[in-house]
Amino acid sequence: MRELTLDDIDNLVLGATLLGTGGGGDPYIARLMVRQAIADYGPITVVEPHELDPEGLVLTTAIIGAPTVILEKIPSGKEFASGVKALATYLGKEPVAMMPIEVGGMNTIIPLATAAELGLPVIDADTMRRAFPQIEMTVFTLAGIGASPMSIADEKGNLAVFETANNQTAERLARSTVIQLGLANAISCYPATVAQVAKYGIQGSMTYCIELGRLLFAVQRGEEGAYDAFLEFAHGRKFFTGKVIDIDRRTTDGFAKGTVVLEHLDDPSRTMRVEIQNENLIAFEDGVPVITVPDLICLLDHENAQPITTETLAYGQRLDVIGLPCAPEWHQPGMLEVVGPKAFGYDVEYTPMEVTAK
Amino acid sequence: MRELTLDDIDNLVLGATLLGTGGGGDPYIARLMVRQAIADYGPITVVEPHELDPEGLVLTTAIIGAPTVILEKIPSGKEFASGVKALATYLGKEPVAMMPIEVGGMNTIIPLATAAELGLPVIDADTMRRAFPQIEMTVFTLAGIGASPMSIADEKGNLAVFETANNQTAERLARSTVIQLGLANAISCYPATVAQVAKYGIQGSMTYCIELGRLLFAVQRGEEGAYDAFLEFAHGRKFFTGKVIDIDRRTTDGFAKGTVVLEHLDDPSRTMRVEIQNENLIAFEDGVPVITVPDLICLLDHENAQPITTETLAYGQRLDVIGLPCAPEWHQPGMLEVVGPKAFGYDVEYTPMEVTAK
Repeated sequence: MRELTLDDIDNLVLGATLLGTGGGGDPYIARLMVRQAIADYGPITVVEPHELDPEGLVLTTAIIGAPTVILEKIPSGKEFASGVKALATYLGKEPVAMMPIEVGGMNTIIPLATAAELGLPVIDADTMRRAFPQIEMTVFTLAGIGASPMSIADEKGNLAVFETANNQTAERLARSTVIQLGLANAISCYPATVAQVAKYGIQGSMTYCIELGRLLFAVQRGEEGAYDAFLEFAHGRKFFTGKVIDIDRRTTDGFAKGTVVLEHLDDPSRTMRVEIQNENLIAFEDGVPVITVPDLICLLDHENAQPITTETLAYGQRLDVIGLPCAPEWHQPGMLEVVGPKAFGYDVEYTPMEVTAK
Repeated sequence: MRELTLDDIDNLVLGATLLGTGGGGDPYIARLMVRQAIADYGPITVVEPHELDPEGLVLTTAIIGAPTVILEKIPSGKEFASGVKALATYLGKEPVAMMPIEVGGMNTIIPLATAAELGLPVIDADTMRRAFPQIEMTVFTLAGIGASPMSIADEKGNLAVFETANNQTAERLARSTVIQLGLANAISCYPATVAQVAKYGIQGSMTYCIELGRLLFAVQRGEEGAYDAFLEFAHGRKFFTGKVIDIDRRTTDGFAKGTVVLEHLDDPSRTMRVEIQNENLIAFEDGVPVITVPDLICLLDHENAQPITTETLAYGQRLDVIGLPCAPEWHQPGMLEVVGPKAFGYDVEYTPMEVTAK
């Protein structure tokens, strides 16, 4: 059990934005939200599962919608706690802790702010160690843990609670509801016991983000050897450095979808194309897939190493394309059905980035 | 308090199908459901509000979706009771009675079957005394009674509970959910007290349907003077008798929409066009609106006086177009905003059928 410092939070926001792999929400707003929550409600405590009652209820909260919308329709703040409280009432049980469902600039941070507001600790774990666009895309789905009962709340007091036969239906019902409620809402899903989080969650993802953020700040300060240290810690590799020469963006089916094309800075005959659905999904170099989901495609500003979220991609940007392997917890039966390229509709085989890098 | 006989139910089904004004669900299936429920659970008791505790909870149930789908995707039956039970659990209170939300071939009858299953009486009232396609289109909306908390259930065990800031949002969220769940689901909305039903409901609508059905059966048997007696009781008027010469049908936005054109049997230069959204909404004779919502447009088979629901309309049918005035309870401030032609997107003024008939 430890309290997060403001430095921790700055590192966490940066690391989480990187692992958001283009999605997971805008870090600027999230950073303001968590600092305000600490000022209002006091410090945030991070715990590990063994410090809690195994039977205790863990609830999550996140923003759900399209990043292009979230950027403009910023949260009012109260919808997150009210969605969590509504789900607790529905379940007839009070939570003992909060947990982020994914890692991302907003979705790691909002649970911290909500936990401060509700006077709860936050478990140092999540269910993706990256961001994914759809609710069923978690290691909890692989473990057979239901996304429902789940709640969706908006800033106007509208509230929905769902119980679904499977996590794919949970995704469809949540998506059709957030399309009606303005595409930037609060979701609380995957209610679980502490014991389930301990057994099936991805442990230490918050600590991992903080360390990753600390190393990336060193890169941003231009410290010698920092880029290599950062890549080594994350088992990452730089695949490409190029300039954005084309970007196609459409907000459709409740998602921000798009395609970005980069031309290599040193060799204009080389191009890289990245396909996007809220998050960066597949990177093709000259038509050949080189980084594929669930591995992470992280776009960093070539000048200052700032992670670029998909909604802020722009023509002319110079970017480093970094590949990171997905968390090892993903490598279990069923992974490709839930988060492989075909789960997103691409007729592409998953090839671990360590293989294509050779 | 009285028990419904099987004769009552046959009359009720026929009368309710007529007042469904093209919608409200297929009467054949509903009749089978209620007869099975009586066989399984015993007789159905109809009560008036003054026979119940004024503070008692009244819950509703209905099928929601597109009639064209409901005709093929017939209910499993259990979704209605499970939706009602889920809403009762959410409200933390047990109901003392059921009530139909609208009048229609299915939606008057399903609450009877569900009431038998749950061992509850049914209140002789509703909130439309006809069928309307959207949830907010009730006299309860005019009285400021919320459609939510409401539940939607399907036959696979999927369940949604909504609390919304207004009844228009309730409609949007319910519609987007039933589109995902197959366009034929169980809804329980407008939880109310017995006192609210007594003050704001449309009283005696079930008794009214039974009498209407009895009179229409006499028409169907060809009894002398029966057609006049039927029209007199309902304050109705025959506007047109024609043959279907064109029908355009589309299941879109979660509704069965369409247009049907009739050519007059005696004078082919006269045509009538009826616009449909689940229910018949506006009848135009030679381009002039002659019957407009909320007044009722009822299409009867010209040969046997059987009410024709919109999903069974077919080329070549010979139909009588009957206009009936809406229930007098509709005539209060706000009516046209909620159920007038403009509420359905038509740039047409409401003209009471008694006026156009002159």
